[in-house]
Amino acid sequence: MTATPDPAAWSCPAPLRDQPTVVLGHGGGGRLSAELIEHLFLPAFAGTPLAGTLAELGDSAVLDLAPGVRLAFSTDSYVVRPRFFPGGNIGDLAVNGTVNDLAVSGAVPFALSVGAILEEGLDLEELGVIATTMGAAARAAGVSLVTGDTKVVDAGHGDGVYLNTAGIGLAPAGLELGPGRIRPGDAVLLSGPIGLHGIAVLSVREGLEFGADIATDSAPVTALTQALVGGGADLGVSMMRDPTRGGVAATLNEMARSSGTGIEIIEGAVPVPEVVRAACGLLGLDPLYIANEGRVVAVVRPERAEQALAAMRGTAVGAQSVRIGTVTDEHPGVVVARTGIGGSRVVDLPLAEQLPRIC
Amino acid sequence: MTATPDPAAWSCPAPLRDQPTVVLGHGGGGRLSAELIEHLFLPAFAGTPLAGTLAELGDSAVLDLAPGVRLAFSTDSYVVRPRFFPGGNIGDLAVNGTVNDLAVSGAVPFALSVGAILEEGLDLEELGVIATTMGAAARAAGVSLVTGDTKVVDAGHGDGVYLNTAGIGLAPAGLELGPGRIRPGDAVLLSGPIGLHGIAVLSVREGLEFGADIATDSAPVTALTQALVGGGADLGVSMMRDPTRGGVAATLNEMARSSGTGIEIIEGAVPVPEVVRAACGLLGLDPLYIANEGRVVAVVRPERAEQALAAMRGTAVGAQSVRIGTVTDEHPGVVVARTGIGGSRVVDLPLAEQLPRIC
Repeated sequence: MTATPDPAAWSCPAPLRDQPTVVLGHGGGGRLSAELIEHLFLPAFAGTPLAGTLAELGDSAVLDLAPGVRLAFSTDSYVVRPRFFPGGNIGDLAVNGTVNDLAVSGAVPFALSVGAILEEGLDLEELGVIATTMGAAARAAGVSLVTGDTKVVDAGHGDGVYLNTAGIGLAPAGLELGPGRIRPGDAVLLSGPIGLHGIAVLSVREGLEFGADIATDSAPVTALTQALVGGGADLGVSMMRDPTRGGVAATLNEMARSSGTGIEIIEGAVPVPEVVRAACGLLGLDPLYIANEGRVVAVVRPERAEQALAAMRGTAVGAQSVRIGTVTDEHPGVVVARTGIGGSRVVDLPLAEQLPRIC
Repeated sequence: MTATPDPAAWSCPAPLRDQPTVVLGHGGGGRLSAELIEHLFLPAFAGTPLAGTLAELGDSAVLDLAPGVRLAFSTDSYVVRPRFFPGGNIGDLAVNGTVNDLAVSGAVPFALSVGAILEEGLDLEELGVIATTMGAAARAAGVSLVTGDTKVVDAGHGDGVYLNTAGIGLAPAGLELGPGRIRPGDAVLLSGPIGLHGIAVLSVREGLEFGADIATDSAPVTALTQALVGGGADLGVSMMRDPTRGGVAATLNEMARSSGTGIEIIEGAVPVPEVVRAACGLLGLDPLYIANEGRVVAVVRPERAEQALAAMRGTAVGAQSVRIGTVTDEHPGVVVARTGIGGSRVVDLPLAEQLPRIC
């Protein structure tokens, strides 16, 4: 029998977290990010009329505007380096990223704002390509770019282009998703292969050749999430997330911690493309921690798992969906991977991201 | 009789606008900004489902979500240098700026998103002060900070903190405001003294002492705009704007150009605080072009002008409201100031901003 890890018996690595200044890890989606939000932003923003919403800390806020009118609202900034990479650029990433944050809350995104911070000296032709890519991505995702703002900072500040998109979408009335619905026994589903976005960006940034075609999987997931929760579908979905910064590992850890349950995954069940596996082997990275931008992790009731998987596989973006694990009442708040040789390892929330500035 | 300017007879200054790269002026709210939006972003974003909304190019998009539910949606990024200045910092500026963009569309803002792009090495204590200021500004404006995102960029990129806020508000059903409603004869009202925000920021940035207390006028204007258009008020309002980048001059030019009318202001009627006048004299700046962040320009039907002024003066932020001019069918698209000595001058839309990065 394999031992169940006992987190209480571990000795923690030396804390790196009492530094008085911002470090790259504060933007990495790991523990440092979580601490910055919990200890700095949340107390500062407390006491505003809808503060209860913020406390839920999802990727989107969901607000009841009027009877039957439920609005999801989300924002993300994009500082990816380099701005162009195989399969995409910062423009479609900025559209898909915010579309997907709304989509996994169960909403149908319909409008985005665009805030651009440009660096003096940026080539206008390059900006034109990025804007055109944003327009195409918006049309593909069925959303409109309805309002915007442009600021310019002096040469040497900024990195050519930083983009922010905020988005709004309509969520089905009566739909309740979130960690509070996750129960032991629930199935953990993943919509397809992982790591392609992060490795695609990395390959250009570091000038690496992995000897194979690689391209970001950046794509809108609204069709997939709506197949699960839209139009009155009752597929027993407890919660959905898109595993971006920090990868599938960070998403599963967030789900486990916020729901107070444990999650067990079968490592061999997680689809990792050969090129991602090779690149990770070369660089000493773990594919579970690599960022994605067209993937969904969905937790669903066990009796609906096969039906939910079929619905996911019926969409183009989810054709390779698989079940990767199960929610358990053992090791609450901890994610464990069963390995191929019968062992198990803890899949911890990283302190920061392995690869900064992938999105 | 003073001559009415005839724009057709002018010779244009040499165009500086065929440069192939981004210049600071593209973020200044003047002609270069307008050209970037019209010639680069709008064509790129065209063809998305709600593209008609974007074409209106207001500070906010107004979307009909459901019968009787009309949502205003807006965004702005803030790159002000320095981050702290007399009377405020980048944090309350970022809250008030987006609140006011929504407020002048007639909406009551209720929720904001916050996107922070932090530079590695930023002092966390300073970030705490900025976040606390944002929370206080949100409470003062009656809005909630409901969703957010933090990214970190490498030291030497960025300027400590760039903030983006996007906001949503509910607009009264049936309220129609905009350039299409402006008619010759309408009165042009201004909610108080101008130039304080821009000069306050400039004073710290350039290390200037103007020998007097000066502080930003950054404040939320929702109470004022709702006094004009909220709760079924019928004060004949055609359009409202907050004169930020490019100052009152840019706002009046936008109104004149988009409505196809002319605007005539009485230069002496525009309240300019002594300290702003002195600073502008020293620096060769025109107060009409200095940015504000707690002011409103409202165009109202002439028969309601006195009533509207009284409503504005009944609010704390609008206590010093005055009438500064009149809409005319002469010189369409052009703003003219009558000067104290009986002459007139054209108040042109600046090519770029006199003072970059004031907001």
